[in-house]
Amino acid sequence: MAVTAFDKRPKPSFEQAFKALSDMLDARFTTNDSLRRQHANSIAWAVSQPPDAVAFPESEQEVVDIVRICSEYGIPIIPFGAGSSFEGQINAPLGGVSVDTSRMKTIVAVHDEDLDCVVQPGVTRKELNEYLRDKGLFFPIDPGADASIGGMVGTRASGTNAVRYGTMKDNVLSLRLVLPNGEVVRTGSRAKKSSAGFDLTRLFIGSEGTLGIVTEITLRLHGIPEAISAGYCSFPDVRSACDAAIQTIQSGIPIARVELMDEMQVKGCNIYSKLDLPEVPMLFVEFQGTDKGVVEQAERFGEIVAGLGGGRFEWATAAEDRNRLWTARHDAFWACNVLRPGAKTVATDVCVPLSRLAECVEATQRDIRETGLIATIAGHVGDGNFHVVPLVDMDSEAELAAVEGFLHRLVERALEMEGTCSGEHGIGQMKRKYMLEEHGDAAIELMRTIKEAIDPGNIMNPGKLIPERL
Amino acid sequence: MAVTAFDKRPKPSFEQAFKALSDMLDARFTTNDSLRRQHANSIAWAVSQPPDAVAFPESEQEVVDIVRICSEYGIPIIPFGAGSSFEGQINAPLGGVSVDTSRMKTIVAVHDEDLDCVVQPGVTRKELNEYLRDKGLFFPIDPGADASIGGMVGTRASGTNAVRYGTMKDNVLSLRLVLPNGEVVRTGSRAKKSSAGFDLTRLFIGSEGTLGIVTEITLRLHGIPEAISAGYCSFPDVRSACDAAIQTIQSGIPIARVELMDEMQVKGCNIYSKLDLPEVPMLFVEFQGTDKGVVEQAERFGEIVAGLGGGRFEWATAAEDRNRLWTARHDAFWACNVLRPGAKTVATDVCVPLSRLAECVEATQRDIRETGLIATIAGHVGDGNFHVVPLVDMDSEAELAAVEGFLHRLVERALEMEGTCSGEHGIGQMKRKYMLEEHGDAAIELMRTIKEAIDPGNIMNPGKLIPERL
Repeated sequence: MAVTAFDKRPKPSFEQAFKALSDMLDARFTTNDSLRRQHANSIAWAVSQPPDAVAFPESEQEVVDIVRICSEYGIPIIPFGAGSSFEGQINAPLGGVSVDTSRMKTIVAVHDEDLDCVVQPGVTRKELNEYLRDKGLFFPIDPGADASIGGMVGTRASGTNAVRYGTMKDNVLSLRLVLPNGEVVRTGSRAKKSSAGFDLTRLFIGSEGTLGIVTEITLRLHGIPEAISAGYCSFPDVRSACDAAIQTIQSGIPIARVELMDEMQVKGCNIYSKLDLPEVPMLFVEFQGTDKGVVEQAERFGEIVAGLGGGRFEWATAAEDRNRLWTARHDAFWACNVLRPGAKTVATDVCVPLSRLAECVEATQRDIRETGLIATIAGHVGDGNFHVVPLVDMDSEAELAAVEGFLHRLVERALEMEGTCSGEHGIGQMKRKYMLEEHGDAAIELMRTIKEAIDPGNIMNPGKLIPERL
Repeated sequence: MAVTAFDKRPKPSFEQAFKALSDMLDARFTTNDSLRRQHANSIAWAVSQPPDAVAFPESEQEVVDIVRICSEYGIPIIPFGAGSSFEGQINAPLGGVSVDTSRMKTIVAVHDEDLDCVVQPGVTRKELNEYLRDKGLFFPIDPGADASIGGMVGTRASGTNAVRYGTMKDNVLSLRLVLPNGEVVRTGSRAKKSSAGFDLTRLFIGSEGTLGIVTEITLRLHGIPEAISAGYCSFPDVRSACDAAIQTIQSGIPIARVELMDEMQVKGCNIYSKLDLPEVPMLFVEFQGTDKGVVEQAERFGEIVAGLGGGRFEWATAAEDRNRLWTARHDAFWACNVLRPGAKTVATDVCVPLSRLAECVEATQRDIRETGLIATIAGHVGDGNFHVVPLVDMDSEAELAAVEGFLHRLVERALEMEGTCSGEHGIGQMKRKYMLEEHGDAAIELMRTIKEAIDPGNIMNPGKLIPERL
């Protein structure tokens, strides 16, 4: 798929800039070919477009210096976290410098009493939770990959816990970041709420590095619940599984996780994670609270499942069993590969209002069958958000065309249902073409106005998120 | 207190614009003196600065037309909801047209299954909840006043439920709004989450009408809980009351409301709301959930209170008793008036990290005593947010100076503790002077960049929120 440049300016001469960056960072600035390729798109199906160089800053001051140099020479900057984004966010369609924050890994502070912590952007979500465990605290946002916190800010990430704990937008108290002009901004305080001015924090969350580079994040933390119980349950079809999720939310049961896997996804997980689940639509659920509260929630959920013809509930209260279950769920994307070895996994997601979820998933399954694709469906159905992963032979023109048509219909379907083209993967390069349809001319023009005001040189991750002017 | 103009341009001639507005709106456009005065600041202690005219649009199209006319002639627009803001948000320091949205009162849709609704900005929070009651749903954000939903978007309002349900930022799914250029933007879909582009919704929430006028709001709703129980409890001092709130949050009890009143506030409420509470520091609390869950929460809260030397817990499980209690809490601001008849109530708020709350409230009480003021303290202490209401003789220069000094120290104290100068009242005119100290040069310059890009003519609520360039 061709990627069109965000603007038409000629690629600047990079020589002087690269010399300055090299003088500053020494071996932490490189034009090494394999490192460049590692920093371009890998897991997404966007064509890989490596940057011209990769920089590895170790401090906010180094980020400032990199940005000032790139700004002076008009060189694109592509912020890079763990490289686990799905929609081509880390490609370098106009070349430039990939700024890899993975060496900024300090957990600066944990404030137990305030349930918050301060981290650098290169800390990954698993590293943070490992560090927090002894304190009885955790950070809930859990995309499938072990993404970096900085990257998760960029894509407004969420995951299986979002139904209870919200997304990145709800779990970041403030940011420190470097603007395209090299100025450092702190977007908020450590107060739990504030009405002091524009919400700069939320403006940067989900902006995919197009407005600046995050150098420090203050996150909300949560206490590890007293009691957790998890389990799974089979359903005759995806509609009844979705309906169980919908009714659970509507009836106010504070379910912590409710994840759908369709029969094809279960099949993949059985092979990849060595499980022996029945290969039918399945909900994985988790309840959190006090001992009594968890039992009460589970009982009420059980009644809903029974009313919809669901199968027996299999419990996994022991931490080990629970972890196995949720690891399988987190590995669902990787599990897709085993269903068609050699094929490319084309992961995408949409999100619709809860009342339209069952209809949307059913229509999508029908479309998969009618298009003749092999594809899995899994999703955070308590949010109305689901993933579809077609497995594609990238050498077959016909199959590629069929998949493109399918993905297009999927987005159209979500938008017709008052939903969004991306619940949690972001826009990157791959979904820019849907931005205008989803948001309308005036909103896109407003996004452009903001982008151009903050980044007049268009150096921050150009070619992403905001569609080109026609 | 003098209010300085945001910029220095001369006041334009309004004649032609007013003729066009009058032709369009007929009697719904007025320069009537008493209506103009009603639309300037009333409850805040900012000097009243009436607009030159008031417009009462009844549709989004009329808002568009008003904005286009004002934009053409460079006339300031001051969005007006219910007029209940505290920090001078509705004053017209540069004159202009107050755009009163109180006739835009349609509840456009309620989507029971999706737990959302669509309303026009003039609907007040009480009107909405009245409408929703039969459906078993409610909208939780409850500032003291019966504010309009549009105004609550403007100030990023919150209230007693925020500890459990969040603030306006967490309970708005999307907005329709009119930009200063007259374009209509829809900021999001009805999906519960999205990562499709810049978070325009959050950019406008809390922007106090400086970026546009909201014409439609899609709100998250919540089911009325199965069981609610509320009560109150006395404490030997504000520190132990604060500590009870802090320990409750830290131990993960999902308390729905936890409100502090100091002895002076309790005294006011006793008189105003005809209660007979002991005049000592007091927590009002509410638990929500299932029957069992509520009991369990209350038991654990009781243990915390006992450990801190708190008094016996008085329950109010009957809906009538509960309403009486919470009405008294919501009327706390009005109750201040009875403590010093004829004095002006100067309401303000700050918010600090939870771990600093007790220290901040204690230091503030000490300052009240040492400054010789009569002032109440009440607050949403589960969020670290509290209100201080000095009662001021506006004719005494000495007292005014003393209050200004006190308020200044209050904000300094909150900022030193990594807090914010406003937890929920906003900035308006009165707290602009603290914006630079709280956010720093680069963040304020970024806010200015955004404001100037979206509103280059500075017609939207000029003189508010963003501090003047020095």
